[in-house]
Amino acid sequence: MANQVTLDRAFAACAHPIRRGIVERLAAREEDDDGGMTVGEATRDFAVSKPAISRHLRVLEQAGAIVRVIDGRTHRLRLAEQPFDDAADWIGQLQKMWQRKFDVVEQFIAEKREGAAGSRTDRGGSA
Amino acid sequence: MANQVTLDRAFAACAHPIRRGIVERLAAREEDDDGGMTVGEATRDFAVSKPAISRHLRVLEQAGAIVRVIDGRTHRLRLAEQPFDDAADWIGQLQKMWQRKFDVVEQFIAEKREGAAGSRTDRGGSA
Repeated sequence: MANQVTLDRAFAACAHPIRRGIVERLAAREEDDDGGMTVGEATRDFAVSKPAISRHLRVLEQAGAIVRVIDGRTHRLRLAEQPFDDAADWIGQLQKMWQRKFDVVEQFIAEKREGAAGSRTDRGGSA
Repeated sequence: MANQVTLDRAFAACAHPIRRGIVERLAAREEDDDGGMTVGEATRDFAVSKPAISRHLRVLEQAGAIVRVIDGRTHRLRLAEQPFDDAADWIGQLQKMWQRKFDVVEQFIAEKREGAAGSRTDRGGSA
């Protein structure tokens, strides 16, 4: 299980439309041999300033959601799956807890019904 | 699909250990008839000030992750699943994109292998 700081950063990385947009763009990109997408390609057309883009990239990098490979003057970005897997695991465990509760309620209702049917049968037998 | 603001709030709600702790506590609680957990029960023993707790609850409420039911002086909290489902859906779609990429790479390798096997057979046939 991921630690708390790792999870904080993973969820914070997902908590802005520009960051989700960059992540979606990197995920949608066909794999090729060039080792990722340039920063320009990954962040083009988002209607925010360059410093704002840099801050979003920093949040993604600190979360380990993207990795920056510097090749001379070209910075390339690659997506890393781990933070997203960690975030999904945490939510998945919550959803399992809900499901369990739901199952308990369903079982309770089923048992009630069986009990009611049983007592009807009993009454039938004694009649 | 959830809109951007909904997703921002859902992920931000998950991006702090105290908020995740409150959510886990509410999720773990056995269902009963009292309509949820009191604020005191849900937030007890977190080592932060009361105003900090109030701020965390506000973030969770704004995300729609918890619903507060006010009954006289008693405030009760219930967990709502939708924001967590929305967040999980977004991550799930990313994971599917990765899986597709992975499948494409696997297929490419398989085709390469078949191609290599085929050409070996051809050579065998002409010998």
